[in-house]
Amino acid sequence: MISRIDIEHAAQRIGGYVRQTPIMQLERQAWEIDAQVILKLEQFQHTGSFKARGAFNRMLAQSIPASGIIAASGGNHGAAVAYAAQQLGYHAEIFVPESCPIVKVERLRSYGAQVRMVGANYAEALIASEARAAQSGALTIHAYNQPEVVTGQGTLGREIARQVSELDTLLVAVGGGGLIGGIAAWFGNEVRVIGVEPERAPTLHTALEVGAPTDVEVGGIAADALGAHRVGTLTFEIATHYVEKVLLVTDDAIRDAQRRLWENLRMIVEPGGATALAALLSGQYQPQHDERVGVILCGANTSLAQIESGYQTHI
Amino acid sequence: MISRIDIEHAAQRIGGYVRQTPIMQLERQAWEIDAQVILKLEQFQHTGSFKARGAFNRMLAQSIPASGIIAASGGNHGAAVAYAAQQLGYHAEIFVPESCPIVKVERLRSYGAQVRMVGANYAEALIASEARAAQSGALTIHAYNQPEVVTGQGTLGREIARQVSELDTLLVAVGGGGLIGGIAAWFGNEVRVIGVEPERAPTLHTALEVGAPTDVEVGGIAADALGAHRVGTLTFEIATHYVEKVLLVTDDAIRDAQRRLWENLRMIVEPGGATALAALLSGQYQPQHDERVGVILCGANTSLAQIESGYQTHI
Repeated sequence: MISRIDIEHAAQRIGGYVRQTPIMQLERQAWEIDAQVILKLEQFQHTGSFKARGAFNRMLAQSIPASGIIAASGGNHGAAVAYAAQQLGYHAEIFVPESCPIVKVERLRSYGAQVRMVGANYAEALIASEARAAQSGALTIHAYNQPEVVTGQGTLGREIARQVSELDTLLVAVGGGGLIGGIAAWFGNEVRVIGVEPERAPTLHTALEVGAPTDVEVGGIAADALGAHRVGTLTFEIATHYVEKVLLVTDDAIRDAQRRLWENLRMIVEPGGATALAALLSGQYQPQHDERVGVILCGANTSLAQIESGYQTHI
Repeated sequence: MISRIDIEHAAQRIGGYVRQTPIMQLERQAWEIDAQVILKLEQFQHTGSFKARGAFNRMLAQSIPASGIIAASGGNHGAAVAYAAQQLGYHAEIFVPESCPIVKVERLRSYGAQVRMVGANYAEALIASEARAAQSGALTIHAYNQPEVVTGQGTLGREIARQVSELDTLLVAVGGGGLIGGIAAWFGNEVRVIGVEPERAPTLHTALEVGAPTDVEVGGIAADALGAHRVGTLTFEIATHYVEKVLLVTDDAIRDAQRRLWENLRMIVEPGGATALAALLSGQYQPQHDERVGVILCGANTSLAQIESGYQTHI
């Protein structure tokens, strides 16, 4: 299992390449929550999500073949891999399904990546990327189920631990589980790490219930970021030891959290980035009086038009 | 003149009511600027701008008549006064010109304020508010030219000084001058405080050139926040001692700073909130190698649709 020492090493490795993102402690009774809420503003990370941490860590921990890097993702992971490869001077080939919106393809290209549009869905693009890597010898970077990736995301746990003292609880959104796996590996039993998933993408919730990573149907507004069909095996093992529980939130609760972040704090996050907060705002997570609750805002890759149309009010 | 002790007192007075906003130190060579850029994220303050500081300070420093508070502003100042009055349990009457957009009126009402729509422009609304205050006995809160207001905004200087060590320079947007007046009063000659104004609203620039606060024509995209016609006398005096210079930036440079804040950092600011950064990004301010340059992002009260339409690219 991933250790705190592994995460220390990762932090030293990626320190010059990723941003230390700020935290913000909210005022008492913010949103009428009787707890001390501390937001970790990871949406300000390079490429707009925490994914840069894992991408840099894997690239810096491995020797990179001449054929470079391969990944499959039209979303946050793909952008992070493309960006990290560009910064480090490696060739990146990113596989996306044929249905990938052109703005996402353009974004990958803007980071210098070669984009391959293959397959009807993510699973097919992933298979194509693995076949290509087997042939070219390029290093694959998985979206969540590789030790260096989970360890890299774990640097977020280390960072928040250095910024905030005496955290009781940390709420973390879960897709494939790279982030919560790394964070739970850092904190062990020191902080209660609680996962939050959309009701329509309950990968870790189901895995813990069933006792093994299990395929689930996924959908809903956060599916582009949290829509892995099955939680990673690395995270599953960590989670059985160190994730206290996984809460489920509705799409409406996620939308409401996005809206309140804009209206009360002038912060923009994507649905997946608001999912952890949604558990607190919807009452799915009910803190104790004066509990110090950390909430990770983990991504902001959304179009502003989308956000505006989801909100009922203007400022 | 306002002293550091006055600002200390203000900070103690308003501490329970305003947020400590985060800072974010950018990576080396961010935006290809050869300096250490530190952003102060004051756009996350209550009501989305620094104005809450001055509003709370004046309300908490004075005894409030039964008739409450009066201010004139449909913008950031009005919202801050309405919010502070609501939090402190005072009646607030806010005067806005008849042309004030209904969304801004609604926003003031959402904070419990009584909104009076009077006059063809801000100047007429201000005159009406003063006449009303003379009659009702309510306490007026000026947008920038009152000691408690300038002192309250100065708490932002104190706060950044506690968050960031060894700042060389601080770039601050200027409208009526309440913010830069308070900040320059805090730092004195310890940090080079530099004002930034839109070319089309050069109030402090003109005043320092002419040697006295002077009416100027104002316009441009930041006019709703930085469009005071004349800098306050309190700030003018402080500025003659402690503001090193005032730089002017174009509307295009402001728009570009807004766009880059979204694209590279996923932050939304209004034009006035991006004006200080525009001086750095446009090269109007050229830092020394390794200079530690603080930039205050001071407001985010913009509609997302407006931002989106100003940007050429999506994410």
